[in-house]
Amino acid sequence: MNVTKELHDFIFNGHLTYVPHLSIDCAVFGFHDNQLKILLLRSKYLDGWALPGGHIQRNEHIDIAAQRILKERTGLDKIFLKQYQTFGDPDRLKTQSSQYFLNAVQLPIPPNNWLMERIVSIGYYALVEFSKATPTPDLFTEECDWWDIHQLPALIFDHDHMVDLALQTLQAQLHYQPIGYNLLSDKFTMPELQKLYETILDKPLDRRNFQKKIMGLGILEKLEERKSVGPHKSPYYYRFHEKNYENALTAGLAFGF
Amino acid sequence: MNVTKELHDFIFNGHLTYVPHLSIDCAVFGFHDNQLKILLLRSKYLDGWALPGGHIQRNEHIDIAAQRILKERTGLDKIFLKQYQTFGDPDRLKTQSSQYFLNAVQLPIPPNNWLMERIVSIGYYALVEFSKATPTPDLFTEECDWWDIHQLPALIFDHDHMVDLALQTLQAQLHYQPIGYNLLSDKFTMPELQKLYETILDKPLDRRNFQKKIMGLGILEKLEERKSVGPHKSPYYYRFHEKNYENALTAGLAFGF
Repeated sequence: MNVTKELHDFIFNGHLTYVPHLSIDCAVFGFHDNQLKILLLRSKYLDGWALPGGHIQRNEHIDIAAQRILKERTGLDKIFLKQYQTFGDPDRLKTQSSQYFLNAVQLPIPPNNWLMERIVSIGYYALVEFSKATPTPDLFTEECDWWDIHQLPALIFDHDHMVDLALQTLQAQLHYQPIGYNLLSDKFTMPELQKLYETILDKPLDRRNFQKKIMGLGILEKLEERKSVGPHKSPYYYRFHEKNYENALTAGLAFGF
Repeated sequence: MNVTKELHDFIFNGHLTYVPHLSIDCAVFGFHDNQLKILLLRSKYLDGWALPGGHIQRNEHIDIAAQRILKERTGLDKIFLKQYQTFGDPDRLKTQSSQYFLNAVQLPIPPNNWLMERIVSIGYYALVEFSKATPTPDLFTEECDWWDIHQLPALIFDHDHMVDLALQTLQAQLHYQPIGYNLLSDKFTMPELQKLYETILDKPLDRRNFQKKIMGLGILEKLEERKSVGPHKSPYYYRFHEKNYENALTAGLAFGF
């Protein structure tokens, strides 16, 4: 099936396959080598970059839909996505959506078309190792790439607000959930772990205070081995205590309460 | 307008006023005198208790809709509601909804009626002082009352799951947001504050550890005054430091990071 026919079908018959009035958008953050990035795509028909998003099939669980959409749009598979906010401003699409679809099919679209109506979008987010996740654009997508969160391009609709809130959620998550597994090597030094926190929080942290707090959580094991970085300062390696880390993921970091 | 006519209109013409496929449910927790309760209602037509819920008007922001619905169903006004999860299992209403509306109007309802289709529900939650909030049922509601969270009645649809997740969210919130303003008197003792935390977390906390942690957050001021409870143990009063409390509400409790 060629792109034009597929897009035409989506616009004029998509409501038979998908639930109207609802969509999903995914904010996928990538961490690697002390950089925090976000996955964005540029549609062939849209003027600006966007979070990977799409619609929910009539009989599909929304969590499954989020996984499928991310995979279709970007090729990223088996990413653990978590809901963070549902976006329901009645005017969130008003300025651009009709133009979008006019550009796409070069045909008039009736005002009662399912894509012309109000759409509430469910936001999901994830944090992955971006060097291991190579985005691949689908048929409708011109480009799909990681962007530095400090240098984002112009985003469509309310996607800048979506990115802001996803980032706030990721930052808040540091205070009640462990983080780092899958983002750091099996063993890592305290400065490496601190850098992960500093990058996500986007601010420097006090070294001694950080070490005290993080050790107090009981999710780290100090190893005998040191990393060789020079004759005088060879930091110890640490690793995550698997069981405590898992427990903290589900129960939350108690922080002593 | 009588109930039957109003209900008939809602079932057969509601899709003209409300966005199909979407609803809102509100989990409102009430705290008073070391008890945690939740606000439930029993519809005139439903077999079981339910969270106060309803639909979103065609041009209404979802946050405004949540406030309006809670006010209509229970009379509770100006409650600060916060989104916590959107519930999107395609089968979440399957077992009971058709029976519900059949009971309600005693008329056959076509399978393509907007209320027979899949509905995704956006969950909001709040924590209020329940002695100050007296629920008042609306036309469709038989009863509306506070229930002890340890002794809930049978709930409709997936509302037991909604309550579980709302409670988990409230408990997690203790770890990254201050709590207590509007729930405690202007000045309170450390044991009173600890009791609030223990009631929500549903577990006893170590007294010394609690005091150390909570003072470390910088949101409390110790007063010179003591509460007179007996000749030998008169605990000091505390109050919230207004500015630090406000800051922590928006920035989150940093817990030292």
